[in-house]
Amino acid sequence: MRPACDRIWTHARLATLRDGVGVVEDGAVGVRDGLISYVGSADGAPDAVETIDCQGRWITPGLIDCHTHLVHGGNRAAEFEMRLAGARYEDIARAGGGIISTMRATREASEEALVESALPRLDALIAEGVTTVEVKSGYGLDLDNEVKMLRAARRLGSERAVSIRTSFLGAHALPPEFSGDADGYIDLVCGMLPEIAPLADAVDGFCEGIGFSPAQIGRLFEAAGRLGLPVKLHAEQLSNSRGAELAARHGALSADHLEHLDAAGVAAMARAGTVAVLLPGAFYFMRDTQAPPVEALRRAGVPMAVATDCNPGTAPLTSLLLAMNMGATLFRLTVEECLAGVTREAARALGMLERVGTLEVGKRCDLAVWDIERPAELVYRMGYNPLHARVWRGI
Amino acid sequence: MRPACDRIWTHARLATLRDGVGVVEDGAVGVRDGLISYVGSADGAPDAVETIDCQGRWITPGLIDCHTHLVHGGNRAAEFEMRLAGARYEDIARAGGGIISTMRATREASEEALVESALPRLDALIAEGVTTVEVKSGYGLDLDNEVKMLRAARRLGSERAVSIRTSFLGAHALPPEFSGDADGYIDLVCGMLPEIAPLADAVDGFCEGIGFSPAQIGRLFEAAGRLGLPVKLHAEQLSNSRGAELAARHGALSADHLEHLDAAGVAAMARAGTVAVLLPGAFYFMRDTQAPPVEALRRAGVPMAVATDCNPGTAPLTSLLLAMNMGATLFRLTVEECLAGVTREAARALGMLERVGTLEVGKRCDLAVWDIERPAELVYRMGYNPLHARVWRGI
Ligand SMILES: [Zn+2]
Ligand SMILES: [Zn+2]
Repeated sequence: MRPACDRIWTHARLATLRDGVGVVEDGAVGVRDGLISYVGSADGAPDAVETIDCQGRWITPGLIDCHTHLVHGGNRAAEFEMRLAGARYEDIARAGGGIISTMRATREASEEALVESALPRLDALIAEGVTTVEVKSGYGLDLDNEVKMLRAARRLGSERAVSIRTSFLGAHALPPEFSGDADGYIDLVCGMLPEIAPLADAVDGFCEGIGFSPAQIGRLFEAAGRLGLPVKLHAEQLSNSRGAELAARHGALSADHLEHLDAAGVAAMARAGTVAVLLPGAFYFMRDTQAPPVEALRRAGVPMAVATDCNPGTAPLTSLLLAMNMGATLFRLTVEECLAGVTREAARALGMLERVGTLEVGKRCDLAVWDIERPAELVYRMGYNPLHARVWRGI
Repeated sequence: MRPACDRIWTHARLATLRDGVGVVEDGAVGVRDGLISYVGSADGAPDAVETIDCQGRWITPGLIDCHTHLVHGGNRAAEFEMRLAGARYEDIARAGGGIISTMRATREASEEALVESALPRLDALIAEGVTTVEVKSGYGLDLDNEVKMLRAARRLGSERAVSIRTSFLGAHALPPEFSGDADGYIDLVCGMLPEIAPLADAVDGFCEGIGFSPAQIGRLFEAAGRLGLPVKLHAEQLSNSRGAELAARHGALSADHLEHLDAAGVAAMARAGTVAVLLPGAFYFMRDTQAPPVEALRRAGVPMAVATDCNPGTAPLTSLLLAMNMGATLFRLTVEECLAGVTREAARALGMLERVGTLEVGKRCDLAVWDIERPAELVYRMGYNPLHARVWRGI
């Protein structure tokens, strides 16, 4: 008879993240056909074809980076250098810097080149136990180039053993050819949706004075809703434009950044079950001083996720462990909140909680095995990778 | 006839750090008997037994981490977790936390165990191109345990292809057995020096309200001077106790931290040629708000180095690249200052500038070869390691 498990990891300490951290001392996780078939004590674990003795190491769900701009052309190191040397934003803009420089480099790059340049960044995430990565478009800003970005993102998932979720971020910035006509550009973006839909798992936008207005984002979300596409939003990063309330009204999976979120926004998110995706890497890199209202989110029971925001302009960050440290150090998230933020709540922010994010029977067997004595070490250290092994869909 | 070089790295872009960044486009570095025998253009490079085509990659001097507490027992992740959960310092002290907990764990560990626990941290530094690491004692706080720490530090240099410099930091904290008798403890520390001298490249101290007074540190420095041992000092981290002036008066190699340094301290350091070792990882992790007076140091021509401060209590940081990013982001160091800070100026802070820290004929051939388009990328990215190859003493 075929054993109950294809493979079992035993004598591990489990952080199942099912309820709180969900610790199981001397636990085991079994897999069958790529799905978790056993989670519990090592004692009484079922038979398996292969048994891996974890010797007391910790197992968490594979980590999930639920907000990245991993696919993009070029980088903005020269702009960073100019700013440190005292250049003003005008100087940088004149030198061709800013988001439009990334748009240009992305438009100029082939799909192949975008994949090639994203792979080392993806590999950095994978090396730390990440098994699911969300990737946004948003530097193409026309149909062909947005499609190219989303195809490149999807291809990352065939190049590496990792699950990729894509978000269409056509409403990221106004391309120069629409200068002064944001409404016209939003019309174009809404018109792209039917062709984009097969390539995107969600529709995202940037609601901000320097981005798009709530009215414009609202039109986009309605168009997305007609196609059955879930929505999420960059909201309240630089000011409060009530983007989170708008997102909540549309049943958004998440509202992200949220430094300037107010009580009404918190309440709306709590009612809608919209996840707050916190991006401390951007807060750190931009030397922001207003942190998101973590205590209010906590009290209201809004689920909180943590992500890298990996992007060339405001967060060239490719370490989810470091994002956790920044979440704790800069935003005062607890260890448990950081851990849940890159597993269970990150899965929720992607609408994937039924498939990944916790160690539970029936979910995909995505695991990270760690050389640590306690989960807090994953948050406490900076620039250190204690990953012992990584498992994606049971392998 | 024997070729002029044993090995040559050619078609590289060089950041020699000899004067400014010291860029050589299409350059080459040759080695003979472990020392650099050629630095210049690829065109006209001498013959070599082995030629390595760098295909346009950048070469910098091997990186130098000039301030670490890499050797220590235990970690303080539990304390970090308690603080995030709202515990006060008294609670943590009652639970056995703080520096004394590291002292206890270090005293309990064997020399072998200290080496074993430090190696993964050292490997994290090495993986980023670090070729020289300073390691302090200071968690033993009695003769036998300080000797054990220094021996463990020296042994790291035989376990890995890396140069280790040791600093004796007996005057780090007051051990409980001397409670209320800091002067008596300093007498003991001064008395240790003859036995310590063969194991230590410098003598260090912690001059601070919660550490030792300038008068106590002065006595230690005089004793060190009588034995011909160079000195350095943790100074002005939490308050201004005129430690930097004291250090400068004793011709110290460096004064480190310096958040509360004032104009008189800057002037004294400039006159003495004492290096300012900046430790932005501790500033970040402790959520400090007062940055060191970088602009004043710059104007006065005080050499500035950047280091990890890797330690379990205030900077569990094992990435010198991340320390550079923090130096730029939090302290507004320029890219050139960050690069010089982990090469030339770090060498100066260790009294090793004649042997390492720049690409110059006659120095040790310690190199880092990088997959980057411009040196700014080493500072700009967070949690990303573009090291292509690392060379220690020519190999
Ligand atoms: Zn974003
Ligand atoms: Zn230190």
